[in-house]
Amino acid sequence: MTFFDSRWVQRPDHVAEAPDDTLPAGFRASGVAAGIKPSGGLDVGLLVCDSPEATSAARFTASGVLAAPVIVTKERAHLHALRAVVVNSGNANAATGRPGLDEAARMQGAGGMAAGVPTEQVAVASTGVIGVQLDGQKVVKGLLEANGQLSPGGAVAFADAIKTTDAFDKRATLDVQLPGGTVRLAAQCKGAGMISPRFATMLCFIETDAVLSAQTADLLLGVCVKRSFDRCSVDGQLSTNDTAILIASGASGVEVEPEGESELRFGEALDALLRQLAILMVRDGEGAKRVGRVVVRGGHQGTVEAAARAVANSPLVKTALHGGDPNWGRIAQAVGGALVGTAPLELDIDFDGIAVMRAGNAVRSDLAALQARADQDEVEIEIGLGGWGQGGAETEVFFSDLGHGYVTINAEYTT
Amino acid sequence: MTFFDSRWVQRPDHVAEAPDDTLPAGFRASGVAAGIKPSGGLDVGLLVCDSPEATSAARFTASGVLAAPVIVTKERAHLHALRAVVVNSGNANAATGRPGLDEAARMQGAGGMAAGVPTEQVAVASTGVIGVQLDGQKVVKGLLEANGQLSPGGAVAFADAIKTTDAFDKRATLDVQLPGGTVRLAAQCKGAGMISPRFATMLCFIETDAVLSAQTADLLLGVCVKRSFDRCSVDGQLSTNDTAILIASGASGVEVEPEGESELRFGEALDALLRQLAILMVRDGEGAKRVGRVVVRGGHQGTVEAAARAVANSPLVKTALHGGDPNWGRIAQAVGGALVGTAPLELDIDFDGIAVMRAGNAVRSDLAALQARADQDEVEIEIGLGGWGQGGAETEVFFSDLGHGYVTINAEYTT
Repeated sequence: MTFFDSRWVQRPDHVAEAPDDTLPAGFRASGVAAGIKPSGGLDVGLLVCDSPEATSAARFTASGVLAAPVIVTKERAHLHALRAVVVNSGNANAATGRPGLDEAARMQGAGGMAAGVPTEQVAVASTGVIGVQLDGQKVVKGLLEANGQLSPGGAVAFADAIKTTDAFDKRATLDVQLPGGTVRLAAQCKGAGMISPRFATMLCFIETDAVLSAQTADLLLGVCVKRSFDRCSVDGQLSTNDTAILIASGASGVEVEPEGESELRFGEALDALLRQLAILMVRDGEGAKRVGRVVVRGGHQGTVEAAARAVANSPLVKTALHGGDPNWGRIAQAVGGALVGTAPLELDIDFDGIAVMRAGNAVRSDLAALQARADQDEVEIEIGLGGWGQGGAETEVFFSDLGHGYVTINAEYTT
Repeated sequence: MTFFDSRWVQRPDHVAEAPDDTLPAGFRASGVAAGIKPSGGLDVGLLVCDSPEATSAARFTASGVLAAPVIVTKERAHLHALRAVVVNSGNANAATGRPGLDEAARMQGAGGMAAGVPTEQVAVASTGVIGVQLDGQKVVKGLLEANGQLSPGGAVAFADAIKTTDAFDKRATLDVQLPGGTVRLAAQCKGAGMISPRFATMLCFIETDAVLSAQTADLLLGVCVKRSFDRCSVDGQLSTNDTAILIASGASGVEVEPEGESELRFGEALDALLRQLAILMVRDGEGAKRVGRVVVRGGHQGTVEAAARAVANSPLVKTALHGGDPNWGRIAQAVGGALVGTAPLELDIDFDGIAVMRAGNAVRSDLAALQARADQDEVEIEIGLGGWGQGGAETEVFFSDLGHGYVTINAEYTT
């Protein structure tokens, strides 16, 4: 089984999937069951970088309602020099007010104690139900145990401990050939619902043993997040907790130099890694069975963005994708609904490579061929906005279908 | 059984439900099976006003992708003096290009012939699948038959002929006491999916025997549509075909005078009628079992609108409503996602009258009481935006839940 299995992501030639799950040099991780999840599953994860010279970068949700761990990490952690991450699943610690902030601060402090690093070098993250107070005592107890289990092979347990409704793993370890030598790049990611604009209800922790300046880490993470987690939607719901953190231990001694060949290659590897992870999140969209990719061309940036999001978030388009139904009329409807007052829109629509609409007119097409395309695991929709809003912009959004599983999971996932 | 059965609509004292289904004086209608629906159900409706002095008003979807019948009616009909409406269900005649426009024009011409009125006094409307050519020949044949069946009691068949996935009737006949005498007011409405911003995938035809100037008809329809069909959402999907038409025959001889008591009373009756119909559409949201009403107060108009739509269209909020789950954390999340970059939002949230959040902090509340409120047929959510975006604006949106039925209907409703 290969990690890079989407038609929309190419593994760069200088990138190889690592044969084992070992973290990059300088990192240890673990995951334990602390009793926060009613299921008794792993729910507290600890990631530690042993290098005092570690650099880092982070990105967070843009929501107006921020979870306590996001506030604490943004305000009280040195985002360019993180050395530890404490995560719990089963409770988002969001909409929990002052007591929630206290619990997040306590998590940060306990994480620093456990990992033996200064508090301000610890990031905290939570995922799970919103609006319920987190029992910080459980997290602290879990951290004590997690600390005893830290190991370079702990990425698997750590990745398990950050999951909520995820149906499968979203992690990878890669070897990246740079001009100065080979570096290792790994990531553990979670996310299956409440996924949209900006990135998602997702957590992603990325480790490398390359030598990266904090500025380079920030630049590369920013660009790659914009092209991956920022371009996917399960249900159009921006989360309160989204967090992506990149930490570089520098333990390989191989440097990534700004604007050089090494930065280009490392950036390509990170880009492929995060895009494949984003597609995995969409593929694991709660109850989903297919991934759609909508590409919109021809208007200004705001226009193509609105049209692409409208298609990706349309429950009519998403249910048709679920049913394997090449119902492109709903695609036209979604674009029209997003761009009000623009009639007549002279849309061009291609359904997975088959022209179905040209300049607003239906194109007679082979229904059997369309149905075969609609029945794939990955379906591509291309939309041209025609004469309207000429701006030459282009964007893409990856999105999941909407099936019974989403309803079952979310109508029963209780407070 | 009473028509006015929502907690959110009061029947005005001067309005009574008429004991029979007879149309207002001066109107006849019918509905026939013309073979457009695969089910063989009624699918062509004809409504005729026999008064040459009829006045009318109309409102349409704002989508950038307009169905052919909308284009033809907007461009080629005298919207202030309509005397006939031809409707087909089973095919939306949308995204059908030039041939679709020809079929819509043919429908209009045949409608005029059948009804014996000038072509430009005929409105046409369609609802059903998008992107498939309409067989106009079937509509024309159906019209011949429909013409022979026109009767004052034909509102029931007409209402049946405009339905698609509707599970129940959405029509009413009211007697309205005005200072000058009693007038009759009736409406036939359809809509169950692809319902949102602006009004909906909905058709609504309203008849009265009051004497109304075209200006008054336009004013009253405009105001009442904004407070009803414009405020409801099943799935956030703006349709290509939305059409609402009011025709006044004047046959009662009772006048509605501008800015007088009669206009006030007639307006109140129309307002209650359309609000109840809008709620019925939401209640009949594909697969839905509850109606939610979200009220947002405190920001500027654009802010409260964005927040209310975000809650009404959130699949997480909608699945919780379906499951009878008072998961107000998802409400906070939806508002935060709509108002990016505003953190910390100091939200107040009341879940059906029970305070659950104050100034961004969770309020300890009685879970059993919350669950009982969540389990009602109609659930109200009130949101205050707190200190942020002070503007004193207020808005409401009625919305349906999201259940398995929506997925079943829409994953299998094929091209």
